[in-house]
Amino acid sequence: MNASPDITTAALVAVDWGTSRLRAWLLDPAGNPLASAASDDGIGTLNGGHEAAFEKLVAGWPKLPAIMAGMVGSRQGWREAAYLPCPANAAAIGAQLTRFTTDAGRSVAIVPGLAIRSDGRDGDVIRGEETQLIGLAEREPAFAGTVILPGTHSKWARLAGGSIADFQTFMTGELFELLSEKSFLRHSVAAGGPELADAPDFALAVRRTAADGLPFLGALFSVRARQLLLDVKREDNLAYLSGLVIGGELAAARAMGSLGTDTSVRIVASPALARAYARALSVLGLSAEARDGSELVLAGLARLARAAGLLEQTR
Amino acid sequence: MNASPDITTAALVAVDWGTSRLRAWLLDPAGNPLASAASDDGIGTLNGGHEAAFEKLVAGWPKLPAIMAGMVGSRQGWREAAYLPCPANAAAIGAQLTRFTTDAGRSVAIVPGLAIRSDGRDGDVIRGEETQLIGLAEREPAFAGTVILPGTHSKWARLAGGSIADFQTFMTGELFELLSEKSFLRHSVAAGGPELADAPDFALAVRRTAADGLPFLGALFSVRARQLLLDVKREDNLAYLSGLVIGGELAAARAMGSLGTDTSVRIVASPALARAYARALSVLGLSAEARDGSELVLAGLARLARAAGLLEQTR
Repeated sequence: MNASPDITTAALVAVDWGTSRLRAWLLDPAGNPLASAASDDGIGTLNGGHEAAFEKLVAGWPKLPAIMAGMVGSRQGWREAAYLPCPANAAAIGAQLTRFTTDAGRSVAIVPGLAIRSDGRDGDVIRGEETQLIGLAEREPAFAGTVILPGTHSKWARLAGGSIADFQTFMTGELFELLSEKSFLRHSVAAGGPELADAPDFALAVRRTAADGLPFLGALFSVRARQLLLDVKREDNLAYLSGLVIGGELAAARAMGSLGTDTSVRIVASPALARAYARALSVLGLSAEARDGSELVLAGLARLARAAGLLEQTR
Repeated sequence: MNASPDITTAALVAVDWGTSRLRAWLLDPAGNPLASAASDDGIGTLNGGHEAAFEKLVAGWPKLPAIMAGMVGSRQGWREAAYLPCPANAAAIGAQLTRFTTDAGRSVAIVPGLAIRSDGRDGDVIRGEETQLIGLAEREPAFAGTVILPGTHSKWARLAGGSIADFQTFMTGELFELLSEKSFLRHSVAAGGPELADAPDFALAVRRTAADGLPFLGALFSVRARQLLLDVKREDNLAYLSGLVIGGELAAARAMGSLGTDTSVRIVASPALARAYARALSVLGLSAEARDGSELVLAGLARLARAAGLLEQTR
C-alpha cells in the first residue's frame, strides 16, 4: 500500500531509518498504520541529502510531523540524538527526542539511542533496538525477561516493568561472516547444507560452547581439525561454525548475567534466525518465543510518539 | 652466509619450509650449521615445483640428504606426512619421517605433524611447531611446563620429560587482523600508538578478559563504545583490542588446563610479540622466558635427524 482513501485522517509519519533501509508508515491518531513506504536510502548509503531522500519517499502523503528511530540519529545520520542512560522507559525516552524543523518546514523528532557507562564493562550502546524494545513492552506489558535481537551485532536486553534495564552487544553475525568468508576457516566450510536449526552439527557446536563450557576461542580451530581428521563435510562444518559462534554468544550472555535458567526469552528476528536461536536455547533447556521486528518498531514509534505528545495520549 | 670453506664436512641439509618462507641450513655431522639460505618460495606461494624451488636454493651446496619440517608435509606441500598422535617425543617422531627420493636422486625425509583426536575437543593439529618443541626439549631437557608459540594461529603446548604431552590452537593473530582491519571495529582503531607491551590500554584489556573474567565475545563491542562514550584515541583502542584478543586467549588457555598458576612458561616468538605475551602473562602474576624460533627449529631438525639416523647418534 502506498496510499489509501483515508489518509486524510493521518496524524503522524513514523520512520525506521537504519543503515541499509528507510521505512515509513503513515499513522492515524491512534497509531494505526494507514500506508507504508520503503526505499534503499539507508544511512550507510547516504552522504548528506537526508531531507531529499525522506521527502521523496513520502511525497504522496500529507505533510505531517515525523518521528524517526535508528541510525538516522547517529553522528553519521541526519541529526545526532545523544545517547540516554539506561535504565530507560517510554516516558524517559519520549521526553528526550531530538526535535528540529526541516528546510521544508516539517517537524521532525528523532529517538535517542541508549548507553551504558560502566567501569566494569567499558560501556555499550544501542540505537534503533530501544524502539523495538519499547514496542515489545507496549505489546506485552507484563513481560519481564530477556529479549534477544540477533543480527550483525546481536543485542541482548533485560526488560521489566516497561523499562529497558540493561543490555549487552555481541558481534555475532559479523564474526560469523568474517570467519566463514575471510578467515583461514573459509577453506573448511561451504554453504548449501541443511538449515541451521535442523543441522545436527549446529546443535553439537552449541553444546560444546554453551553447555560443556569449551571457550569460544579454544573451539574455533576445531573447524579446521574436523575437516582434516574427521573428514567432516564442509556444509556440515558451516553449521558447526555457526553453532560455535551462537553457542559462544549464549555462554557469554549467561556468564554476564543476561540469561538465567528461569528466564523468559523473546527473540526478535527473521523466522530462520529466530528458529536457529530457539534451537540453540533449547540445547540449554530454555524456550523462547519469536516476535516480528517490523511490528515492534512500529509499536515502539507509536508509543514514544504518545509519550512525546505527537499522538493522542490514549488510544 | 651462503657458503663457507668447510662445507665439504657437511652431512645433512635441514629445511624449515613454511607457508611463506623456505629456509635451509647445511649441517655438519654434529648438527652445527655451516651455511644457511632462504627464499620466499613458501608452500602457500608454490603450485607444484617444490623440487625446483628447493634445488635452486641449495644449488651451491653438496648434494646431501635433507630433513624438512613445516607445511612442506601438508596435503598442499611436496609430500604429505600424516599426523602422528600426541603425546610424542623425538624418538617417536624421528621413527615416522616420510622418506622419498627426488627425481634428482636426493634423499628427503619430511617430519610429520601431530594430531589430537579427542571427542571432547573435536581434535587439533600442529605442523612445524612440533619441531620447535623438540628443539626446546633438546636445549632444555629438564623443562616441564607450557610453551606458547604465538602468531597467526597461536599454539600452546605442554612439554615434560622431552615429550609433547598436549597442545591447543588459538586463532589469535588472525582474529586480531580480521577485527582490526575488516570488521566494523576498524573505524575505532588505528596503528601508530605505543608498542603493545607498553600501552596501558593493552594491560587494561588483558585484565578485563583474563583476570576479571569478562567473556571475550561480550567484551569486543566495548572497543566501539569506548570510542563513542569515552573519546578513547583510536591508537589506544588498537592496543585495547589486542589486549582483549590476547587476554581472551590466556583466559581460554587457563580454562582448558593449559596454564596453571605455578606453570613454567616459554614463549617462542619475535622479541616484540614475546614482550607483549610476557606483559599479558604478568597481569596474571605469571612470568615467562622468551626463546628464538629459528634456533629451536634448527635444534629440533638436528635432534630428529639423529633420532632417524640421518646424523651421528651422539654429538
